[in-house]
Amino acid sequence: MAKEKQFVKEITDMTVDFPQWYTDVVLKTELVDYGPVKGTMVIRPYGYAIWENIQAELNRRFKALGVKNAYFPMFIPESYLKREAEHVEGFAPEVAVVTHAGGEKLTENLVVRPTSETIICEMFSKWMQSYRDLPILMNQWCNVVRWEKTTRPFLRTSEFLWQEGHTVHSNEEEAMEETLKMLEVYKDFAENALAIPVFVGRKSEKEKFAGAVATFGMEAMMLDGKSLQSGTTHYLGQNFAKAFNMKFLDKDGVLKYAYSTSWGVSTRLIGALIMAHGDQRGLVLPPVVAPIQVIVIPIAAHKGGVMEKAEELVSTLNAAGIRAELDAREESAGWKFNEWEMKGVPVRIEVGPRDIENGQMFVARRDTHEKAAYNLGDAQAVKALLDDIQKNMLEKSRALRDSKVVWAESLEEIVKGVDGNFVKAPWCGCRECEDKVKEAASATTRVMADDSVEGKKCAICGKEAKTAVFFARAY
Amino acid sequence: MAKEKQFVKEITDMTVDFPQWYTDVVLKTELVDYGPVKGTMVIRPYGYAIWENIQAELNRRFKALGVKNAYFPMFIPESYLKREAEHVEGFAPEVAVVTHAGGEKLTENLVVRPTSETIICEMFSKWMQSYRDLPILMNQWCNVVRWEKTTRPFLRTSEFLWQEGHTVHSNEEEAMEETLKMLEVYKDFAENALAIPVFVGRKSEKEKFAGAVATFGMEAMMLDGKSLQSGTTHYLGQNFAKAFNMKFLDKDGVLKYAYSTSWGVSTRLIGALIMAHGDQRGLVLPPVVAPIQVIVIPIAAHKGGVMEKAEELVSTLNAAGIRAELDAREESAGWKFNEWEMKGVPVRIEVGPRDIENGQMFVARRDTHEKAAYNLGDAQAVKALLDDIQKNMLEKSRALRDSKVVWAESLEEIVKGVDGNFVKAPWCGCRECEDKVKEAASATTRVMADDSVEGKKCAICGKEAKTAVFFARAY
Repeated sequence: MAKEKQFVKEITDMTVDFPQWYTDVVLKTELVDYGPVKGTMVIRPYGYAIWENIQAELNRRFKALGVKNAYFPMFIPESYLKREAEHVEGFAPEVAVVTHAGGEKLTENLVVRPTSETIICEMFSKWMQSYRDLPILMNQWCNVVRWEKTTRPFLRTSEFLWQEGHTVHSNEEEAMEETLKMLEVYKDFAENALAIPVFVGRKSEKEKFAGAVATFGMEAMMLDGKSLQSGTTHYLGQNFAKAFNMKFLDKDGVLKYAYSTSWGVSTRLIGALIMAHGDQRGLVLPPVVAPIQVIVIPIAAHKGGVMEKAEELVSTLNAAGIRAELDAREESAGWKFNEWEMKGVPVRIEVGPRDIENGQMFVARRDTHEKAAYNLGDAQAVKALLDDIQKNMLEKSRALRDSKVVWAESLEEIVKGVDGNFVKAPWCGCRECEDKVKEAASATTRVMADDSVEGKKCAICGKEAKTAVFFARAY
Repeated sequence: MAKEKQFVKEITDMTVDFPQWYTDVVLKTELVDYGPVKGTMVIRPYGYAIWENIQAELNRRFKALGVKNAYFPMFIPESYLKREAEHVEGFAPEVAVVTHAGGEKLTENLVVRPTSETIICEMFSKWMQSYRDLPILMNQWCNVVRWEKTTRPFLRTSEFLWQEGHTVHSNEEEAMEETLKMLEVYKDFAENALAIPVFVGRKSEKEKFAGAVATFGMEAMMLDGKSLQSGTTHYLGQNFAKAFNMKFLDKDGVLKYAYSTSWGVSTRLIGALIMAHGDQRGLVLPPVVAPIQVIVIPIAAHKGGVMEKAEELVSTLNAAGIRAELDAREESAGWKFNEWEMKGVPVRIEVGPRDIENGQMFVARRDTHEKAAYNLGDAQAVKALLDDIQKNMLEKSRALRDSKVVWAESLEEIVKGVDGNFVKAPWCGCRECEDKVKEAASATTRVMADDSVEGKKCAICGKEAKTAVFFARAY
């Protein structure tokens, strides 16, 4: 047992092999395991607890905006997918298909939802009659399936968990406003809950959602300088309204097609947390979403009163709204320090006989490895420390990221730049130039940047630049 | 619009056609709608909010017992199902099968989980080595699929939502203890959160879960005297341990098969709420799980200060932890009264100009239709009222149920009794007698009762009785 536990601490050096470091960390911290079917994952309790905290943070934000949760069926008639031309082209190649059920061949095949615009728009069209029924603002938390060739826990799996918001509006302006509002909600959530700074902006035609008029994304830089698309919002115009007959009687008595949006984030965000904040010792979790915010470790636990004081401390912290736990296992303190550091718990508190005598506790923060003595049981000071860690993690990530954004004005500079960085470059906006960068640098456009390109030429073709854009290698 | 809203109030008389009353209520209160694929349902926001409250109540109870949430893949290799003989026999006829994915035929078909013992035991067997790793106590909230011929929203649908707990133990006693403990958790939850009294007990061999050694159920009586199986816990013995090689090294150095349990409740519970508490006007929801506990309706809302006072009241109630909402729509007060009565909101508060003058508010409770004047803004009194409603609903249900349990000592008495009642009868325990009752009365054994049958004969065959058992028609 002890031997095995020793083994799980061997995490590959992240500077040597970052992908292997990632795999080691997700498996050894017991966030996730591989499922028996290729490309699937089991989200273990420690990983799922992060997801539950993510859900709580997002639900709070959605609810404040009047968005209501609901649940739509997972099985979609195959014919629905085909009603929106771009949508079927984008998703048909990766769906899982149910052909038999209840011992019989089905008359129509069912696809397992890769996303739910089709079935949700079908239902919305039933529920909306007049402009008074609009806007409809709904969200669902569910599993989706996209059959992928190359998979990796959290980042890309055949089945994953996500939320998908779907809204319907009576006019274009309001739908576009919603699309951008939800992008801001995601940004606020990424920065303030996950402590991950993100770039948000419009996606290129090539990178947009199949069936959208416009897609907006948020891109997070991982420690290796690659980008992780961490959330997207889509302005769908009337595309799905026309395909699913989403009409309403407007104030002027005219029957009109509505405008819709959709937006989602997934369990991918757990991958983002790992690769944006981790270090050589393993995970570093921001307090807002950490399953355990404070781990209390008794020192010389066999000595009279130590365990009691440690338990009392945990109760005090819990009562103050802190997710604190006691590690009362019969292992050495040093072994426990390593274990909880690997698991990324933001704060470790040690309580030993001498500390108790002095009315103190020893507090170590995971992000900076700093240690300090606090008054024993001072929950408010621990709360302040957690806030400080949350803030510090965002600032540190932002400083690192900002140091890795370079400006390029030629294909050569782009190729050189994307090795470990995000590259911002002026761009003419055409697909050919995107493809050239993809070929030369294995990098894609991520989102448009709002830097001025007045008088600038496209870094690739030299024609007039229409926008600045981020190029990066992406997960 | 107005016309349509009028229409939705027409609910069939429950004394004339109870099943149609149910259908009217679930659709017209917008709890649920039919999905496009036969047998599927869309859980609309009002229904889903009940589910979220159910989840919160259960998660709190599970967590207190050390059960952790996780997520396992939905796709199970078809071969897994076959490893436990009874299990495959029970579930194979109702599974949905994925044969193609990613544009290709799969080498092995995948079944969409009808329940997850197989895949979870497979993973547990990977994670457990020694007795120190036990017990494992996990739960997942997810969708499951069971292809049913006859379906009804919430009660029986092709896809539904549920929680499934799965635990592994080093010995028989502990596993059985867990099985019974979770049955008590369910009972406590049903009675104190749903205000539904339940009978709990062991199921017959015929009615047990496919693959279990013993199944325990909780049965709730609906207003028509029929039973709704509302939750089950299963003692699985070593059946799944042997099929999935769940072995552990025990303290004595011997490698042993473990003992496992599973237990679940589903969105069926929403159906139970409707049919246990509803009345001619529609839903009656117990405060603990009601999406809206208090609806505030401004009277003569156009008059100065009314809307402001109503808003202030909602804020006061929210701050006190009450789920209160304001109905500020431009409809008549009478129309709103009907609407919220139909939707089963436990408490309605009216605030009009005269009330404000007198520092009062008019409070109506949904369960008894009693009305009273309260001091305006007295949140504590409203809280006490909600508690009283919760208590009263359970008591009322219990009194009604207890009046509809009859004792029978012959087949004739059983046949006569099950029309609108639960029948308790002494039983020899054999399958033939169960089948006879099924044929004669369309009733099944629900759970064993603990009444003494000393000296009694089986009501059906006249042989020595081994136990008392509940017979009832069931949903």
